[in-house]
Amino acid sequence: MRDPAMPIVAPQKPASSTLGTLHGIGLGPGDPELLTVKAVRLIQAVPVLAYFAKKGCVGNARTIAETWIIPGTEELPLHFPMTTELPFNDSVYVDQTCRFYDAAATEIAAKLTAGRDVALICEGDPMFYGSFMHIFVRLKDRFRISVTAGVSGMSGCWASAAQPITWGDDILTVLPGTLPLDVLIRQLAGTDAAVIMKLGSNFSKIRKALAETGLLDRALYVEHGTTPAERILPLREKSDDEAPYFSLILVPGQGQRS
Amino acid sequence: MRDPAMPIVAPQKPASSTLGTLHGIGLGPGDPELLTVKAVRLIQAVPVLAYFAKKGCVGNARTIAETWIIPGTEELPLHFPMTTELPFNDSVYVDQTCRFYDAAATEIAAKLTAGRDVALICEGDPMFYGSFMHIFVRLKDRFRISVTAGVSGMSGCWASAAQPITWGDDILTVLPGTLPLDVLIRQLAGTDAAVIMKLGSNFSKIRKALAETGLLDRALYVEHGTTPAERILPLREKSDDEAPYFSLILVPGQGQRS
Repeated sequence: MRDPAMPIVAPQKPASSTLGTLHGIGLGPGDPELLTVKAVRLIQAVPVLAYFAKKGCVGNARTIAETWIIPGTEELPLHFPMTTELPFNDSVYVDQTCRFYDAAATEIAAKLTAGRDVALICEGDPMFYGSFMHIFVRLKDRFRISVTAGVSGMSGCWASAAQPITWGDDILTVLPGTLPLDVLIRQLAGTDAAVIMKLGSNFSKIRKALAETGLLDRALYVEHGTTPAERILPLREKSDDEAPYFSLILVPGQGQRS
Repeated sequence: MRDPAMPIVAPQKPASSTLGTLHGIGLGPGDPELLTVKAVRLIQAVPVLAYFAKKGCVGNARTIAETWIIPGTEELPLHFPMTTELPFNDSVYVDQTCRFYDAAATEIAAKLTAGRDVALICEGDPMFYGSFMHIFVRLKDRFRISVTAGVSGMSGCWASAAQPITWGDDILTVLPGTLPLDVLIRQLAGTDAAVIMKLGSNFSKIRKALAETGLLDRALYVEHGTTPAERILPLREKSDDEAPYFSLILVPGQGQRS
């Protein structure tokens, strides 16, 4: 089978007998059974297991992968400094996360330079709004990097909610809830199906955008999809505006069906 | 762990001691190692294995799952009558596919009524432009249905291409290439990142839409992603307009990175 770290488009360091390979591995939406066979194989084969976690926490990635980790594997937790939610364009946030990713990349690079392969495990799909990407861009010109796709959070959520999301020639728009109200409204008005991510403190703004575009009755709220804490309900039945940052809203398409 | 066939939003038939359960199982983009652990477990546990295939063909789903099928499993191939690509709104296409799905649902229902569980395996993610959805809507009020999310074709393709697709608050728009030129242009002009699916005979129209929106230089073409026949190249280097229907074009986002 072809190795997915392909050098055609984004030239990467070729395999080397002295440098280790970085494996970016998607873990899927939360259910440990939704890891791919390849993810499990790599987690069990690669000597160093790296993952992001908030300071003082085990981290969601480590928790999802728990079932599959062989005792005695070397672990490299990469501790996020932030504990509060800041906007993407806030300069404190940007500086802080930039320094964090620089430091994390340096820690991973040290292992790779020592000839050890590293598996960086990530919730969901690593190249889709993934924190892995920040390490990828920092190391791709110096080391060989292989990416293993995962089941995205949104796929896990629409499967759990038993909702076909797109039919025939439906357009799907994925919108971070961090966007301004007018952008959310414009985008929702111009699509057939939508997924709104990164809810948290953006919830009431998102609800307003859905109401203004007449989509409130079609919208579903999904929290902790595919995990034991999963909660799914029509948005109109959700009475408060509290939501974890990584919860989702789904607006299924209604396109041509045969 | 919670069973993902959840009855809150789309009420489904409860578990019954006499009726079988239908499992809609995503197989991922093509690499047999990109099946989830859950997909493999169900394929090996469920007594009847159903899949779509063109008449006279084994079918992609059966081929992807091959590695994991236990010899002696009862197989239920569901043969598509169509051999040519017809537009979604063509009445011949709609009639033909509608009759096909009716017949396929009847065949599956007969197994379920006889108390046998059925695994309907599907390429990619079953609820995302999936043919499984046509069986789901036909049987959901009569039988218990469980859906297992899969790695989507697009996730497999952007991992293979080593392309982070969305950063920060990037908007992702997924566009079937079957859409009219003016719709493609409007949508591409209003998004940060895009995936264009269902290429086939739509290729030259799609290329035109990308050129008109200044995205040609950012676009990548991916054919048979994650399989041994995989081919990835910048769209500007693709000299002809020939493409399999299930190939993809990716336009990675360029949003805020830390």
